[in-house]
Amino acid sequence: MTLLVQKYGGTSVGSIERIQVVAEKVAASAKAGNQLVVVLSAMSGVTNKLLGWAHQVQVEPSVRELDVLLATGEQTTVALLAMALEELGCPARSYTGGQVKILTDGAHTKARIIDIEQDSIRQDLENGKIVVVAGFQGVTETGDITTLGRGGSDTTAVALAAALKADECQIFTDVDGVYTTDPRVVENARRLDYVTFEEMLEMSSLGAKVLQIRSVEFASKYNVPLRVLSSFEEGPGTFIGPEDETMMEMPLISGIAFTSDEAKLSILGVPDIPGMAHKVFGPISAAGIEVDVIVQNIGNDQTNDITFTVQRKDTAKAAKILQTIAKEINAEEVQVDDKVAKLSLVGVGMRSHAGIASRMFETLANESINIQLITTSEIKISIVIEEKYLELAVRALHDAFELGSSGAQTKA
Amino acid sequence: MTLLVQKYGGTSVGSIERIQVVAEKVAASAKAGNQLVVVLSAMSGVTNKLLGWAHQVQVEPSVRELDVLLATGEQTTVALLAMALEELGCPARSYTGGQVKILTDGAHTKARIIDIEQDSIRQDLENGKIVVVAGFQGVTETGDITTLGRGGSDTTAVALAAALKADECQIFTDVDGVYTTDPRVVENARRLDYVTFEEMLEMSSLGAKVLQIRSVEFASKYNVPLRVLSSFEEGPGTFIGPEDETMMEMPLISGIAFTSDEAKLSILGVPDIPGMAHKVFGPISAAGIEVDVIVQNIGNDQTNDITFTVQRKDTAKAAKILQTIAKEINAEEVQVDDKVAKLSLVGVGMRSHAGIASRMFETLANESINIQLITTSEIKISIVIEEKYLELAVRALHDAFELGSSGAQTKA
Repeated sequence: MTLLVQKYGGTSVGSIERIQVVAEKVAASAKAGNQLVVVLSAMSGVTNKLLGWAHQVQVEPSVRELDVLLATGEQTTVALLAMALEELGCPARSYTGGQVKILTDGAHTKARIIDIEQDSIRQDLENGKIVVVAGFQGVTETGDITTLGRGGSDTTAVALAAALKADECQIFTDVDGVYTTDPRVVENARRLDYVTFEEMLEMSSLGAKVLQIRSVEFASKYNVPLRVLSSFEEGPGTFIGPEDETMMEMPLISGIAFTSDEAKLSILGVPDIPGMAHKVFGPISAAGIEVDVIVQNIGNDQTNDITFTVQRKDTAKAAKILQTIAKEINAEEVQVDDKVAKLSLVGVGMRSHAGIASRMFETLANESINIQLITTSEIKISIVIEEKYLELAVRALHDAFELGSSGAQTKA
Repeated sequence: MTLLVQKYGGTSVGSIERIQVVAEKVAASAKAGNQLVVVLSAMSGVTNKLLGWAHQVQVEPSVRELDVLLATGEQTTVALLAMALEELGCPARSYTGGQVKILTDGAHTKARIIDIEQDSIRQDLENGKIVVVAGFQGVTETGDITTLGRGGSDTTAVALAAALKADECQIFTDVDGVYTTDPRVVENARRLDYVTFEEMLEMSSLGAKVLQIRSVEFASKYNVPLRVLSSFEEGPGTFIGPEDETMMEMPLISGIAFTSDEAKLSILGVPDIPGMAHKVFGPISAAGIEVDVIVQNIGNDQTNDITFTVQRKDTAKAAKILQTIAKEINAEEVQVDDKVAKLSLVGVGMRSHAGIASRMFETLANESINIQLITTSEIKISIVIEEKYLELAVRALHDAFELGSSGAQTKA
């Protein structure tokens, strides 16, 4: 018998009618002979409403009480789905995180799962019941309610699938899978049947719209087969799993990820002595600014040039800090450019194939797009370019690496 | 140090602003040196909204899931009040019924409290924290969420007060106490400073607007001093406690309760043989009709007349059943009157004083009000009269027994 963990997000359970649609999908899957554990988010909008209330009564809400408050959102949807399933003739039973119990540490609003008790769930499954579990929430050893942070329901689903050794963890969302790139930019972007955990992690900017990165890490660590599917349409979705050793050849490139809201900052003429990188990034990090790409190159005369990117909203703050640092360490100059974008080619296939980078650079040269920064990892090549060329670059590379759907390719 | 259990109902916590007002009242009581356990209902309207959703997804909602759903209402308010208290500088901690744990039987939607664990609450109180407990809910031995039925939050408060041996259980509501009679009928109705548990129970028709009868029974059984107060105005409210043996003389009459939505049914000429009462009331009860007053009198020729009252909405159903029974047992006649009202004088003082009944009857005779039925208990005399005389009767008796406020009495 196949054991599936299915997770439905806030949009999928956003109204009574939608909960009834989810119940029908779940019932169909159960009647097809699957054992089912269903994980739900709160109705879309509810968590934000509760957060708003919390901030009305307390300027900085107590995190313990915030978790008690937020946990009501999923408790509501699991009870309603269990009822809707029973109405369809499917015995079902709801669980809060505490009832399961999904044991977490005490880091309220961003707790980590330590352990999951399985006895009750297994017994319900053996008795032919559908188990409906509140996502996003857990309980500490002392009985305090915790939440796992944004996207925590994905993590709950993956953790349950890992604990129960489910055959598949299916994440139902409002898109029908993971694409080679953003279909809004490239018309013939293609849904991927298969991506590896590593690729999914490297495609974070694409992937974050579909799946929380943390849950992918979790799935990768415990080798939980994941599938992203649409709540609203039929279809196979995208399977996310380990690298398949039986495949003769993995595709060279799986997808093109990109972000356009970046700024690039450079500090030039940094003395080439130990400790300089720390002197630069210590204060930036202390100011709560997230740094994305970092590149260091050797400059002239025993000096280095350090360049990095930050989210565009942090540009002014980062620039001010960098000016101060430049004076302290006797650097020559600070340069700021907030009109840049980042683009990444991702694919496990590139590990064993040379020439990806050169084909990438050639394609961009043909379009007269200047590359400002280059960084690479084992399965990713990222570049920073002028923002206005981003869409052109994505389309050109999507074509060059033949990522499009075959129908569209024929047309092209 | 005085330990108080305070309960605030749905209207008192019906909005964020009202929760903040409750927080201020609680904080003031804490700063005055009291230890406090606060029990809350759900925001007014929320329980009905959730019930509506439940009936949308399941024609007859699963009671287990209904309890999971409804319990979110109080979980929301306790978290918000705890935050609001912390904002006012009062350390506070919320508890769901399961977290306390308030152990109940498994009778979902109408569970009974079996036991209350006190360790965590006592420890919080000793550490100077205000404890905020979700009313209306509990948990079974196996971890299922239960609810106690309508008015269950009053029961939670009284049960907590009993378990913790609190000095007083204060029920904050939208009236400022228990009155000698309904102030809408008698202008100079007076707030009682003190009523006994027994009187409160006998005044159910008055009391039910203020306090759930079940919680008064509970308070009486465990001798928990109760006080009913207004959430919105300052004032001492009404104290409800055991009969005070130090008082030389208890007041003769504490109040006049009445209901006007009753119907009277009589079955005349019932053969005077054993088992007849059961033959009459068995089918009535089996039909789910609640019977209030029952009077049996000896009729003519070895027969009895049985008269009883039911809620007016049940008149037709009860009459039909009674017609069938009348034929079966060879009774003479069935009479139905759905224009009657019931009125009760209640007071522990009447136990030791003759003449209350005769003064009551004299008062009504002076007003030419005919008495249709009379029943008595140790501390109550109830009569059934034609409905149109009800208000006149209440006012006349309120004056005759000098129940009004002294100011008003002077005027009268």
